[in-house]
Amino acid sequence: MSEPIRVGVLGARGRMGAQVCKAVDAAGDLELVAMVDAGDWLFSVADAGAQVLVDFTHPDVVMDNVRFAVDQGMHAVVGTTGFTPDRLDTVRTWLADAPQLGVLIAPNFGIGAVLSMRFAQMAARFYESAEVIELHHPGKVDAPSGTAVHTAQLIAAARAEAGLAPPPDATSQSLDGARGADVDGVRVHAVRLAGMVAHQEILLGTEGETLSIRHDSLNRSSFMPGVLLAVRAIRSRPGLTVGLDPLLDL
Amino acid sequence: MSEPIRVGVLGARGRMGAQVCKAVDAAGDLELVAMVDAGDWLFSVADAGAQVLVDFTHPDVVMDNVRFAVDQGMHAVVGTTGFTPDRLDTVRTWLADAPQLGVLIAPNFGIGAVLSMRFAQMAARFYESAEVIELHHPGKVDAPSGTAVHTAQLIAAARAEAGLAPPPDATSQSLDGARGADVDGVRVHAVRLAGMVAHQEILLGTEGETLSIRHDSLNRSSFMPGVLLAVRAIRSRPGLTVGLDPLLDL
Amino acid sequence: MSEPIRVGVLGARGRMGAQVCKAVDAAGDLELVAMVDAGDWLFSVADAGAQVLVDFTHPDVVMDNVRFAVDQGMHAVVGTTGFTPDRLDTVRTWLADAPQLGVLIAPNFGIGAVLSMRFAQMAARFYESAEVIELHHPGKVDAPSGTAVHTAQLIAAARAEAGLAPPPDATSQSLDGARGADVDGVRVHAVRLAGMVAHQEILLGTEGETLSIRHDSLNRSSFMPGVLLAVRAIRSRPGLTVGLDPLLDL
Amino acid sequence: MSEPIRVGVLGARGRMGAQVCKAVDAAGDLELVAMVDAGDWLFSVADAGAQVLVDFTHPDVVMDNVRFAVDQGMHAVVGTTGFTPDRLDTVRTWLADAPQLGVLIAPNFGIGAVLSMRFAQMAARFYESAEVIELHHPGKVDAPSGTAVHTAQLIAAARAEAGLAPPPDATSQSLDGARGADVDGVRVHAVRLAGMVAHQEILLGTEGETLSIRHDSLNRSSFMPGVLLAVRAIRSRPGLTVGLDPLLDL
Repeated sequence: MSEPIRVGVLGARGRMGAQVCKAVDAAGDLELVAMVDAGDWLFSVADAGAQVLVDFTHPDVVMDNVRFAVDQGMHAVVGTTGFTPDRLDTVRTWLADAPQLGVLIAPNFGIGAVLSMRFAQMAARFYESAEVIELHHPGKVDAPSGTAVHTAQLIAAARAEAGLAPPPDATSQSLDGARGADVDGVRVHAVRLAGMVAHQEILLGTEGETLSIRHDSLNRSSFMPGVLLAVRAIRSRPGLTVGLDPLLDL
Repeated sequence: MSEPIRVGVLGARGRMGAQVCKAVDAAGDLELVAMVDAGDWLFSVADAGAQVLVDFTHPDVVMDNVRFAVDQGMHAVVGTTGFTPDRLDTVRTWLADAPQLGVLIAPNFGIGAVLSMRFAQMAARFYESAEVIELHHPGKVDAPSGTAVHTAQLIAAARAEAGLAPPPDATSQSLDGARGADVDGVRVHAVRLAGMVAHQEILLGTEGETLSIRHDSLNRSSFMPGVLLAVRAIRSRPGLTVGLDPLLDL
Repeated sequence: MSEPIRVGVLGARGRMGAQVCKAVDAAGDLELVAMVDAGDWLFSVADAGAQVLVDFTHPDVVMDNVRFAVDQGMHAVVGTTGFTPDRLDTVRTWLADAPQLGVLIAPNFGIGAVLSMRFAQMAARFYESAEVIELHHPGKVDAPSGTAVHTAQLIAAARAEAGLAPPPDATSQSLDGARGADVDGVRVHAVRLAGMVAHQEILLGTEGETLSIRHDSLNRSSFMPGVLLAVRAIRSRPGLTVGLDPLLDL
Repeated sequence: MSEPIRVGVLGARGRMGAQVCKAVDAAGDLELVAMVDAGDWLFSVADAGAQVLVDFTHPDVVMDNVRFAVDQGMHAVVGTTGFTPDRLDTVRTWLADAPQLGVLIAPNFGIGAVLSMRFAQMAARFYESAEVIELHHPGKVDAPSGTAVHTAQLIAAARAEAGLAPPPDATSQSLDGARGADVDGVRVHAVRLAGMVAHQEILLGTEGETLSIRHDSLNRSSFMPGVLLAVRAIRSRPGLTVGLDPLLDL
């Protein structure tokens, strides 16, 4: 068996970071060599010989962390949010000088979410109608979820590319809001219900048949397979990779 | 075995009426003695000795038909819409003079729809949150469906009676319409999708658990068990009965 | 506002007991006056003036605990398993001498589970077909779940009482096990899937329509509303009550 | 706009053939030039100048029909069943002498069925657990459905290729059949329920999340988009194509 991959985690005491530490520790082919959080000595990650740095920190500090990784010759897997196109360009510039290094930046490490969006995109052009229902715990502040909006946009783009007409809809009398939010012509409905966690259902239909793709995410552990997959893959993916999709080889 | 119940159908060539004729004909304990539609001789129903008259006609003529049934000493099962409180009162007046006769007027003969509304009503007070999703073919003109609005009203009333606070909802940023229509404080979402027929899902949730009641209606034949149940029961239910519920002995 | 109800918890350090302590503590109308586990001084519950004792302990000690509650003039809410008809009779005997005291013994405090079984029972006689699907985490050792077997039995009994014929089923070629387990003529299917917790779906169908009742239970907190409801109700329910159902006033 | 494609239908009075005639007739870019059934003059299809022949007939006559199409220089889209590997080889031999002609033979023209199988195959390697539930009307004679068996086999193959261990399952006490049929290590459950038509749900799960792909087929019209897609595509797909998949460009 080959040597385990040496992994350092930034944001190690955060909710996601702590889970990542546990998951790395439990994986036979990975070794957790450094756990760092705000106030800790960042260079301990380099001192510990980490090959891959995992970052679940904060938009305010993540750019410094990525810069640090590149400077120290470490690959990076980043789940922290707040990456604008400008920030991505900056990272690309840094990587231009380190052509052997790989950085993956992903807004969502849920493999199921990535798969279901991809499937929606692939299937959309075969169906007259498409709508999205997302269901979340009532503590969520935005409606619809970012994932649902993104999913609707992907469906709308696939429909446009296939030259589909707008979905049929004879509604002429409607209570305000009944037909959901309109995202590029695709209706999106947001349910907020105690007892729910994070769920999304994509509904596609044509005369005589419907196809539904449902993703239920119950807790943060569902993101760990995606994080580990990224840690294992990043060393053979030089340059910047955005999103988990390219790693899934779909 | 007892004599079959003699049944006459008004609106016999309409979509619902034709199905009723077939269903009555197929039932061993019922006998189809008259099929009447616009232009036919109404009195043929009485001549044929019908004991129960089934009416799926039109709001413009249904009052005359019910009057005719009462005058001729026939029980009536009525699925025609358009019954205002005034019209119901009028029917009650007529029946006051015919205390042995029963008339049932129901907006919906789907047993599943009636059951699911009843269950929602019974369960509502045990759950912090409640929302309704209805899904229909894209040719439907109203959104949400009348059944969904009625269901939401029943849930809202049950919540109010139990003194529940409004469902928790932290939404502070929302696309227009994302959270559905507000019916007495209960959110209702209407999906319109090719390939769907008529479906409704009632979602109830409290910390750690959810309960969903889903009704899928695929075609008009789903109303026939309710119609036949009414035909069989109406002779022992003198007076006016509104809705199928009282006959289900729930 | 009236005085809070004084509650003592036995098995307070167990998984369920600890949750009960937190839930009682959080409820404005209840006061947690004693937390006792194996090795603790049982009489501290009485000393603390508990009015209602909640027991989530072990079949080996629960009878002594109930006896203690009755002797000390406390009502009891018991979630510990292992109650045979003999044991229930013994409890009844004890309560005969304490006619003002109430004891509730329930195998399942999930209100959703109780409601869905009740709804299945009410609806069963209106449907030609009925099947049950339960879905659980892959660590579960029994298949189907006890709740699913009990649900199927209730459905079978309701069908028998209504004089229904067996559900139609033309299957003549079948892979072993494809049609599920046969529980009193009702088919029950058990899914074991990583990522699932505890879920059950009751499917009822008749020509043209189906009705599904689905219960999703995500964690132990889902039992707390049932426990609190029992604590609040037991003082006005003298004698032995078995199961949560009678308290729901359905 | 280009000339419409000239289409002849064999088995035109059968249930599927009649639907195909209607669908071709309704499509602006297709022209229905011949409708032939048992007892009709087969050569009328050629006389009418059909470019594509659609065959929904019977295993006993389909080989003659395909031979006829190839001899007459027509492309063919075939939904008739009964194609063994030997039969497919024979068709390949015929086509070797007519390299410009295309023949598509597909057991299932439901785009949703094809898509959901493909998605299951793509997603399977990311999930610890996978099971299949199919639900059909109670008149179906085989359990599980051929599609469900095929889906399970595809999942099993994808799991094997990815080197996955068998799905976790701690079941030690089980009622006979509760855990479904075992198809290459994937559990398949068959529900038979009045009111259902043809439905399939693929369940995939890993710690913390599940992904479900559900296909609901309500009537034969759901196969028409697949048939029309094949009619449109076959002229640019010389040789034998088996299954609808290659035409979907997934």
